[in-house]
Amino acid sequence: MKKIHSIQNTKIKDLIKIYNKKNYMNIFFVEGIKEFEMAVKGNYFPIRIFICEKIFHKYNMIQSFHSITFLISMKIFKKLAYRENSGGIIALFKEKKYMNQLKSIKIDNRNSSLILILDGIEKPGNIGAMLRIADAANIHIIILCNMKTYVYNSNIIRCSLGSIFTRNIFIEKIESIIYWLQNNKIKIITTGFHKYKKTMNLYHTKFSQTNKIAVVFGSENKGVSNIWLKYADQIITIPMFGNIDSLNVSNAMSIIIYEIIRQKNYAK
Amino acid sequence: MKKIHSIQNTKIKDLIKIYNKKNYMNIFFVEGIKEFEMAVKGNYFPIRIFICEKIFHKYNMIQSFHSITFLISMKIFKKLAYRENSGGIIALFKEKKYMNQLKSIKIDNRNSSLILILDGIEKPGNIGAMLRIADAANIHIIILCNMKTYVYNSNIIRCSLGSIFTRNIFIEKIESIIYWLQNNKIKIITTGFHKYKKTMNLYHTKFSQTNKIAVVFGSENKGVSNIWLKYADQIITIPMFGNIDSLNVSNAMSIIIYEIIRQKNYAK
Repeated sequence: MKKIHSIQNTKIKDLIKIYNKKNYMNIFFVEGIKEFEMAVKGNYFPIRIFICEKIFHKYNMIQSFHSITFLISMKIFKKLAYRENSGGIIALFKEKKYMNQLKSIKIDNRNSSLILILDGIEKPGNIGAMLRIADAANIHIIILCNMKTYVYNSNIIRCSLGSIFTRNIFIEKIESIIYWLQNNKIKIITTGFHKYKKTMNLYHTKFSQTNKIAVVFGSENKGVSNIWLKYADQIITIPMFGNIDSLNVSNAMSIIIYEIIRQKNYAK
Repeated sequence: MKKIHSIQNTKIKDLIKIYNKKNYMNIFFVEGIKEFEMAVKGNYFPIRIFICEKIFHKYNMIQSFHSITFLISMKIFKKLAYRENSGGIIALFKEKKYMNQLKSIKIDNRNSSLILILDGIEKPGNIGAMLRIADAANIHIIILCNMKTYVYNSNIIRCSLGSIFTRNIFIEKIESIIYWLQNNKIKIITTGFHKYKKTMNLYHTKFSQTNKIAVVFGSENKGVSNIWLKYADQIITIPMFGNIDSLNVSNAMSIIIYEIIRQKNYAK
């Protein structure tokens, strides 16, 4: 492991470039021990690792990466670190290519499966929280469309606690997603309002007989794109009893996804 | 309505003071049309209202407050506004006194009631989201303890969409809360781990026979204080099936609170 003494070092300069630009050379940065571990677990390949000796203490975690690990001083680390309590590690990773691969995935008819579709969610913190719920619910296929933010945004990584790396994530156009869903006979569930379709209370909706379900969540301000309402097999609503007429999108997701889990696993 | 032309005006200087200090003269600021409406609905009293003529268009909303309303230019407004899309209104309000009033509240034995306790939640955004869920679930009594942030923090107001103003909020010491809960025969439900108590899966827990329930949620990093685990009538857990062992606290709350609602209102 080499030591870097100056912030003028080209490797530090490269890191700063990646901090400031989205999508620079298809490289992104990861801060924090948990997040680093999840990236490696998700078969992402680290390019460079920067360690602050005074803070970092998990050397067994990086033992196979000694040749690409650099030690930096507290002073340099503090200039680079976005977060406190990240454990003294910042690493650069290579992106994976997620685009246009959905069509190669075939969903088995025999098994029950739950798919998550996020349409135009704006806040990285919400996307991150939703990926964290997807991890808890063991949802393997997550499809993103109308992305408003870089998929490896540091807030998405942090709020997902690194789940962005261990789930299968696809970025696709809505039309391709609908084509794929229909080909695989996956039912589309969404929230919202369509003038010719009945909206059903979540707790009156029966999910247990439906084998393959995709649940679509839309943007914080506008909800899902109209095309989802058109193709929806069921539009659902969460009952609300107060002054406000909506929930935060990650809270809505947790309620709906866990009701599906409850019906499939815990209902008699 | 008077016009203010300069950022040097004493009323603008006062506003900036309140922006920068917590709890200055027991006055806080509210930004946004929805949030202003909720504050007035919750019987909060506006002291001064600042309107950006170019943006604001809801004059009927402030017609009874003409004498305390000031018109400001786009230039001044942009210097003051934290948010985009707030609708061109910033107002100062007087705090309500929430401390030590819980003991005067008596919970009827005949009615079903659900109480929310937030113990040391750190992020204002989480507190706000949790108050928004409390609104949706029509939880009227919300008790805060070990507060790490100012209760009228602008992020709490925003993320709660103003629900902070329309719910009954109490700030109390844990001991006083437990004394009150026991006096009113309210069952304590929480998440976490206690070495002598059984933790039960949320979906195996029966809430429908219990009339009066208080659900306690703890800080993002440390969970609930140990004393809650000691006094808990039931410790519950949300089943999780992925790599991560916890959910964001507002997501955990939405899952638990809505399962209680489901059992009480929608289960046969």
